[in-house]
Amino acid sequence: MNPTDHVVPGFEAAGIAAGIKKSGALDLALIASRTPCRAAATFTKNAFSAAPVMYDKQVLAINPEGIHAVIINSGCANACTGAPGDANARRTAEAVEQALGAGDHAVFVMSTGVIGVQLPMDALLGGAPTAVAALRADGWSDAAQAIMTTDTRPKLFSRTVEMGGRAVHFTGISKGAGMIHPNMATMLSTIATDAAISQPLLQRALSTAVNQSYNRISVDGDTSTNDTVLLLANGAAGNPEITDPASGEYARFVETLTAISIDLAQAIVRDGEGATKFVTITVNGAQSDEEAHAVANTIATSPLVKTAFFGGDANWGRFVAAAGRSGATIDQRRCSIYICGGANAGERTPELQLVAGGAPLDYSEARATELFQLPELDVRMELALGPGSATVWTTDLSYDYVKINGDYRT
Amino acid sequence: MNPTDHVVPGFEAAGIAAGIKKSGALDLALIASRTPCRAAATFTKNAFSAAPVMYDKQVLAINPEGIHAVIINSGCANACTGAPGDANARRTAEAVEQALGAGDHAVFVMSTGVIGVQLPMDALLGGAPTAVAALRADGWSDAAQAIMTTDTRPKLFSRTVEMGGRAVHFTGISKGAGMIHPNMATMLSTIATDAAISQPLLQRALSTAVNQSYNRISVDGDTSTNDTVLLLANGAAGNPEITDPASGEYARFVETLTAISIDLAQAIVRDGEGATKFVTITVNGAQSDEEAHAVANTIATSPLVKTAFFGGDANWGRFVAAAGRSGATIDQRRCSIYICGGANAGERTPELQLVAGGAPLDYSEARATELFQLPELDVRMELALGPGSATVWTTDLSYDYVKINGDYRT
Repeated sequence: MNPTDHVVPGFEAAGIAAGIKKSGALDLALIASRTPCRAAATFTKNAFSAAPVMYDKQVLAINPEGIHAVIINSGCANACTGAPGDANARRTAEAVEQALGAGDHAVFVMSTGVIGVQLPMDALLGGAPTAVAALRADGWSDAAQAIMTTDTRPKLFSRTVEMGGRAVHFTGISKGAGMIHPNMATMLSTIATDAAISQPLLQRALSTAVNQSYNRISVDGDTSTNDTVLLLANGAAGNPEITDPASGEYARFVETLTAISIDLAQAIVRDGEGATKFVTITVNGAQSDEEAHAVANTIATSPLVKTAFFGGDANWGRFVAAAGRSGATIDQRRCSIYICGGANAGERTPELQLVAGGAPLDYSEARATELFQLPELDVRMELALGPGSATVWTTDLSYDYVKINGDYRT
Repeated sequence: MNPTDHVVPGFEAAGIAAGIKKSGALDLALIASRTPCRAAATFTKNAFSAAPVMYDKQVLAINPEGIHAVIINSGCANACTGAPGDANARRTAEAVEQALGAGDHAVFVMSTGVIGVQLPMDALLGGAPTAVAALRADGWSDAAQAIMTTDTRPKLFSRTVEMGGRAVHFTGISKGAGMIHPNMATMLSTIATDAAISQPLLQRALSTAVNQSYNRISVDGDTSTNDTVLLLANGAAGNPEITDPASGEYARFVETLTAISIDLAQAIVRDGEGATKFVTITVNGAQSDEEAHAVANTIATSPLVKTAFFGGDANWGRFVAAAGRSGATIDQRRCSIYICGGANAGERTPELQLVAGGAPLDYSEARATELFQLPELDVRMELALGPGSATVWTTDLSYDYVKINGDYRT
């Protein structure tokens, strides 16, 4: 993709090497808008929220319609850092506000990397004006690289949709692949759009999109202290402002935002630590969407299920054992299981039914093994109890996951 | 230990090779009492409960004071087997009742092994009278071997306590090490005692003991379809019957039962699939025991924590990240973390504090690594919020866990 494909009018981005990472790699990203943005965000629910998460919650509460930028560092998470960590998050934001000539509470801060270590403030304070000087309309690719920790590739997507006769742009970056010492990796994402939309609807749209994307992925079931998704809208597209949640424009906004969020979230799973497989798990027929999500998520996070994916072993008994402990209502005599290969990659194989009425069918074990050994696998469980559905995306659990997370010294 | 050390008056045990396992290994265990027993049991809460679990619940409801035996097969779990599986569980029990000359609903059935496959009924029906003929007072060791699947060693413990001037005996066996294809391993345990105790107190004592033992262990966070703990009491000790839950005798009964249950449960963790470490996680100062248990259990099941144990890496950031997503109330600025080595093995090292007030202390990283590389590690998290405490026992997540569960074909 051409760099000019990732442009949102009025936004600029940069990624620089500020000296936070000892390797000298890019480690400081800045995304900024000349005009003030409306902002929406979702944050980790972890009780050990990092200092930047707590700072950003304040900024969003105080100034939700006057945001000019977000500064994101990799190499240090500023988590479990006490009162000095709180002050460092604030000082970082203030340095960017000064360099941009913006007012107070106009800049968000995100951090990812080692936990329990203070930010190297010389690098941050020196880096802020350098990053401002490096801002370019086509700087998104550098920004996407600067937020990587254990990620093996940058994650950058754009989408365009027409609204009120104007082209509305979305560009987003994300990072996250699991966790690795000394880095506690984090799921961070920033999406910029030039749409004109009211701030309450911006937050509502983001919550809807996050619930269908970032909340549907699992690499290892762990939630970091820093997880943040930020959405900035500067209104530069000139479309009539979206203010009605029942309007077709709002529906299209949510649809496009959800699509780019799924792009960004799936890219995190595909780059999961040690991942050799991309697995889509769909549960239908639950009593509610929440129960369907509980079943799909319990299957997706089960170490036994994930090692079976790694081994290419069609061991569906592990699916039912995981589903059965999810807390959802299940009548085992109604449960059916189907698998197929490659649907998400667009090369869907014929479906193979393994289980009907809670008991195994006389299927071809060789064919089931073939499907399980494909790099993309779809699993579908039908509970036949109600209208609830959910889909989650996950990876396998491989030797390399253990190596990356346990044996990092070698 | 001498075989005669594992004897409970009035009970006999056997373990035979009935031909269920293709390897020819012992695969059918029988534990029987000449006189009727009072019985208590706890069962898996998995919604995909196996046929023997559903059958045993009926037996316990119908005849809780007239039980003569439990028959346990390995090599086939009789789970996800539909109506034929239900009938096979019942026919197995009836075959044992006939061979023992016992009445209806006098025999429990347990199964562990491959899921989604019907029991080989010729082997079960032929094996029942053979097992009855093999019953011996000192047959517990054979029984402990016959219930093994992926276990690398049998789990057999005995305890004696004096009550009302009479020696009261407890002998128990357990199995379970994780899961492996084609076996879905299961946590099964049977404990026999010659105590005289009322059936309601027997069930109450078992629930208390299970909550402090089997419910405090985790190998991989998965709950099987077959988990069962059975307690049989035949009253042969001749102690005055325990009928008062406020009595000293009841307290001693619970204490001894809890101790043997912890022996049996910890033996399962020590034999966990691929385990190289035994880790004790204690959480104090939570708002309630339930919240302390939630925190300890979330730490114990986190893949990131478990790979850090495997790598001998003192990565306490993973403890706080797991604790923070447990759902328990936490004030991160009050949290402290301590580690020490070998306490459970009786060779406790001095304690090392890593975290105070939610931020790292200036501890020796080399010393922390030394402690993390010991085969037995204790982790203690102090939340400083309330009186709630809990301890759980767990293992690391190793290459061998992935190999056993994913790469079984090589």
